[in-house]
Amino acid sequence: MESYKEISDALEEAGNDDSVLTVFTGYGDYFTSGNDLNNALRRSNGNLEDMITESSNVVRNFVCKFIDFPKPLVAMVNGPAIGIGTTILGLCDLVYASDQATFNTPFSKLGQHPEACSSYTFPRIMGLSKAIEVLLFNKTLTAREACNLGLVTEVFPDSTFQQEVWSRLKSYATFPKNCLALSKQLVRSVDNEKLHTVCVKEMELLIKRANSEDALNAIQQFFSRKSKM
Amino acid sequence: MESYKEISDALEEAGNDDSVLTVFTGYGDYFTSGNDLNNALRRSNGNLEDMITESSNVVRNFVCKFIDFPKPLVAMVNGPAIGIGTTILGLCDLVYASDQATFNTPFSKLGQHPEACSSYTFPRIMGLSKAIEVLLFNKTLTAREACNLGLVTEVFPDSTFQQEVWSRLKSYATFPKNCLALSKQLVRSVDNEKLHTVCVKEMELLIKRANSEDALNAIQQFFSRKSKM
Amino acid sequence: MESYKEISDALEEAGNDDSVLTVFTGYGDYFTSGNDLNNALRRSNGNLEDMITESSNVVRNFVCKFIDFPKPLVAMVNGPAIGIGTTILGLCDLVYASDQATFNTPFSKLGQHPEACSSYTFPRIMGLSKAIEVLLFNKTLTAREACNLGLVTEVFPDSTFQQEVWSRLKSYATFPKNCLALSKQLVRSVDNEKLHTVCVKEMELLIKRANSEDALNAIQQFFSRKSKM
Repeated sequence: MESYKEISDALEEAGNDDSVLTVFTGYGDYFTSGNDLNNALRRSNGNLEDMITESSNVVRNFVCKFIDFPKPLVAMVNGPAIGIGTTILGLCDLVYASDQATFNTPFSKLGQHPEACSSYTFPRIMGLSKAIEVLLFNKTLTAREACNLGLVTEVFPDSTFQQEVWSRLKSYATFPKNCLALSKQLVRSVDNEKLHTVCVKEMELLIKRANSEDALNAIQQFFSRKSKM
Repeated sequence: MESYKEISDALEEAGNDDSVLTVFTGYGDYFTSGNDLNNALRRSNGNLEDMITESSNVVRNFVCKFIDFPKPLVAMVNGPAIGIGTTILGLCDLVYASDQATFNTPFSKLGQHPEACSSYTFPRIMGLSKAIEVLLFNKTLTAREACNLGLVTEVFPDSTFQQEVWSRLKSYATFPKNCLALSKQLVRSVDNEKLHTVCVKEMELLIKRANSEDALNAIQQFFSRKSKM
Repeated sequence: MESYKEISDALEEAGNDDSVLTVFTGYGDYFTSGNDLNNALRRSNGNLEDMITESSNVVRNFVCKFIDFPKPLVAMVNGPAIGIGTTILGLCDLVYASDQATFNTPFSKLGQHPEACSSYTFPRIMGLSKAIEVLLFNKTLTAREACNLGLVTEVFPDSTFQQEVWSRLKSYATFPKNCLALSKQLVRSVDNEKLHTVCVKEMELLIKRANSEDALNAIQQFFSRKSKM
């Protein structure tokens, strides 16, 4: 949960600073490793319902920062993106991916549900019949597939990924700041209200389902598999 | 009209049974052969207006079953899909096609209009300028083209189509039932009301136009061509 | 500005005549060369604010003609399409392009913003992360790229472009007129109100920004580069 808060705070700051655009990327081999279930469970020694409500508020605040981000937001996907690391890309303005990146949302296996507005953005980006296979049936997309489906703007060879993307972003950063910000807000304003509604709906379902048999079974199975490894 | 009623009833039943997902496919070489105009005309010995109103209610009820279907609905397109057999795919969650499948909506030639919410779903899936060529100008899509446009999830060689798809679906059927159903409903809920509005609008146009000169000419030409064959 | 008025008048006339569909294309090597800034500036000897208000009314009227056009509207893109020549394609029903066509919207460099409803149509046609690179970051699309993204219906070799497209359009022109018009209106009616709202919003931003430092700097730089050539 701490990392959600840290990213939310960083976005709040970046939204107000003098930069022309904001970039976020992963460290090491992964872009994101998904929600840390271990961490979430360890906290569950306290009151479970309180924890769920608190966690969902943190995640909703995190997603809202992406919905309302006032200037171009660039995702550099350096490796596998899992869970919210994939779904949040539907709210990013530019998504550059290494050819080593993959995109996976293992919600159903964990008894979970699409979040970060992906229940809205993914069908609009790639069409319903592609989005359902990703969001419900755990299909992993390669970088090339994600690019063909419109989730990713462009794919680069991993060996030159950093160099090529940063060089392009430096050039983009010379564009007039206000102009870019206002154009982005124009493009996004049509969906803004709808996205907030969808985010609330998604979080309500997650809260309602957090104690469901499906979810508890899935988490139990997940850890029993993990402990056998 | 009987087949619409039968499918509607089957969907009503499947929606309420214990299965995790529902599959529909065609028998023989075709997926669908379009509305049976012969049948519709033969019935026109009775009161034409009554027949049109009754038919349109049957079709609207059929489409509503797809809009509101509460769990993942899979279409296996085993061969040519014509008319509503193509348009209804925009309301299906997964669409698997044999490489022998083709997709055709010969509405304009018959003086008819897009239905099954395709006037809404097709532009959103493939973009306006592709959708118009299909819906208005009778363009036939190959399975590969339909897949690239997002109407089809994946294409399989005809020789292994049944085997590969059923094997995948068996694996999907092990996913937690409630979880899939709720995720599907989440994804679809945003468009649900709009889809019902669109369906009513489409049926109103079809009713208004059922006796138009265009439509009667087109049907006459269709049968005069047919009788020359 | 005169050319906007002329095209608006021509569309008004074409919308009401007996033709089945309407085609517009460019003359010579270009499809459009963008707004003629020289012309706009030359007029600025008069009251600048009056001129901006008048110009924006002319452009809004032009865009409204595309939103409300009552029959299929075909764009034949014979060469480079710049600025509004690219953005307006999102409102066209069929877009055929020569393989020599390119698509470019250099808004940000000129301190300008997306218009012709492209802030709405482009993300829906190609997905957000592709649309932003085009609309905000000046990315030029080849004909093939624009076709893969759904902005263009089909690409033809330049040498046979005119012949192939006109031959197809002659065949399309034999389809029943009312049927096509009503189908088109059905497809477009869902978005109609939203498109008018978006168009007003886009023009408000352009008016508000016409005297901004960004815009004046960009125009100054544009002409200083031009005078050095």
